[in-house]
Amino acid sequence: MAVSDHPRMSDVAERAGVSLSTVSRALRGATGVAPSVRENVERAAAELGYVVSRGASGLVTGRTGRIAVLVPFLQPWFFGVALAGMSTEMRSSGRDMLVYQVGDVTELNAYIRSLPLRSNVDAVIAVALDLEEGEAARFDEIGVPVVFCSQRVKDRASVFIDNTEAAADAARHLLNLGHARIAYIQSSDETGFSWASHDRLRGYEAAMAEAGAAPLVVTERPGHEGGALGMGRLLSMADPPTAVFAESDDVAMGALQVVRRSRLEVPDVVSVMGFDDSDMAALADLTTVAQPVFDMGVQAARLAAETIDASEPCSEHVRLDTRLVVRRSTAVPRPTRSLTGR
Amino acid sequence: MAVSDHPRMSDVAERAGVSLSTVSRALRGATGVAPSVRENVERAAAELGYVVSRGASGLVTGRTGRIAVLVPFLQPWFFGVALAGMSTEMRSSGRDMLVYQVGDVTELNAYIRSLPLRSNVDAVIAVALDLEEGEAARFDEIGVPVVFCSQRVKDRASVFIDNTEAAADAARHLLNLGHARIAYIQSSDETGFSWASHDRLRGYEAAMAEAGAAPLVVTERPGHEGGALGMGRLLSMADPPTAVFAESDDVAMGALQVVRRSRLEVPDVVSVMGFDDSDMAALADLTTVAQPVFDMGVQAARLAAETIDASEPCSEHVRLDTRLVVRRSTAVPRPTRSLTGR
Repeated sequence: MAVSDHPRMSDVAERAGVSLSTVSRALRGATGVAPSVRENVERAAAELGYVVSRGASGLVTGRTGRIAVLVPFLQPWFFGVALAGMSTEMRSSGRDMLVYQVGDVTELNAYIRSLPLRSNVDAVIAVALDLEEGEAARFDEIGVPVVFCSQRVKDRASVFIDNTEAAADAARHLLNLGHARIAYIQSSDETGFSWASHDRLRGYEAAMAEAGAAPLVVTERPGHEGGALGMGRLLSMADPPTAVFAESDDVAMGALQVVRRSRLEVPDVVSVMGFDDSDMAALADLTTVAQPVFDMGVQAARLAAETIDASEPCSEHVRLDTRLVVRRSTAVPRPTRSLTGR
Repeated sequence: MAVSDHPRMSDVAERAGVSLSTVSRALRGATGVAPSVRENVERAAAELGYVVSRGASGLVTGRTGRIAVLVPFLQPWFFGVALAGMSTEMRSSGRDMLVYQVGDVTELNAYIRSLPLRSNVDAVIAVALDLEEGEAARFDEIGVPVVFCSQRVKDRASVFIDNTEAAADAARHLLNLGHARIAYIQSSDETGFSWASHDRLRGYEAAMAEAGAAPLVVTERPGHEGGALGMGRLLSMADPPTAVFAESDDVAMGALQVVRRSRLEVPDVVSVMGFDDSDMAALADLTTVAQPVFDMGVQAARLAAETIDASEPCSEHVRLDTRLVVRRSTAVPRPTRSLTGR
């Protein structure tokens, strides 16, 4: 067969050895096409120079084949890992991933406002944003389904972990090691987005109450600077805690740095517990709670795809498990009360 | 004015108090529209329920308003920071960012093969990929300009740092501190993508040769596992080096972990130098070479936008500066040759 200037879809079907409808479905990124078949069709189309006219497949299906992912930040490891999970899942269903950084509520509102104009996505995945009810409803009006990733939202598609239960387990681990004086370093929320901060604190407080131990909470700015400041405060107390539970690994890293710069030993002088199992945790030998971040991305993209294909609202809740990863930063407390053992 | 079922562009212009052409340019994301004006227009359009029909603006300009970013990975900090820079720049020019993870050459080829079918982008930014000449030329055939980010490519738009010169400077810093026996931990390339690895090694070797010092290179797998293995080998030598230069911070972190677990002191026993100034470097007190990663993202997105607007090939080379960040992991060598000073 000669390669014409304007090859038709039937030429692609013939070359790939599949039906017309398979070509159509493969090229517009519909589900239910095996990756190897899709690749065959794409190769045949590319070899023939067959080009789907822009928007043509969208005009047929009313769909764009694209999903938008909204993140408050792009730098932190969490978002890279979640995006990697989404990217993997979207590739397998032939969809494209648009990424928008909406660093504060103003930027988020600007994005939502511009959405009807862009008309460029079939669904939105909101990662670790805390959309208010009115903001979430805005998406409803314009007919774009939203899936929440790393946030549990009532009656809406959400993928999340149980931060409260996971934090309670982590605190119980420290209690079980024999610690009675366990501090918690909490981050103040300056971004307008509520993180899992609140739920984790609740878990810590519940476990302490359960054990009849007095909670000791210090609140500092977010990130490792806050962890350093919080640990500084704790090490300046008349009766410093023997264990510190930081609300995130990033906070824990700041706390660890202060302890190590002081040439105090972890866990001899103080046990340190994080939360997240970020890329730094293993390197810092930090005991922490591992979140299945990659899988959260996969599941969020899967929910988004299912919602698009079903053309109806989805309110499925996917709760993923966490696990405690014990490393060298936690141990039984020393009997002596002095920081240096002397 | 009553809000009609089908508001026209002139209604939007009237409400926003701008000209028709400004509305058109603002809504299709053309450059040269001030952000505040764009926001006014978007708000007016949203309030009126004015919807640009899908693809309509693209049919006029022949453009999609989208730029694709290809990355080999999404997890490492480098890509999150580069994407943040691109996202910031693209927002200001009203463009949307599609992100594709092409983890190996097979996935990259599949993306390139599918590009004519997608017809969905005006330009591609390839981040830290090492496209072969044939692969880069493929983009030319289909009329999509490519900008290379973190790679210097002859006669093509590229944003990069001078890895050779920066590594030579870093090695010279160790030489100037009085180190004579300086090892280099290099990562083998298993991914099919060549990183800056080769250029950095060349810089180290040049500085050593310049000083008349013998190079000592160990090659291990990539990442912190490789750094740990490399440091293990160096600490097992009859005459261990007094300083170690790791090709990346990630490798340096693995090396540091081995030293610290051995209860050897950094920098007393061995100085450690990294490269990148990743998010871990400051926390680990690691002396390193800082890359302007965010700015590389900004510049790559700017080049892509200029190329699209100019509708002609661009071969601008943007070389960004690095700087040595001295922290506590490097110092003058101790006079004694024993690891423990005893």
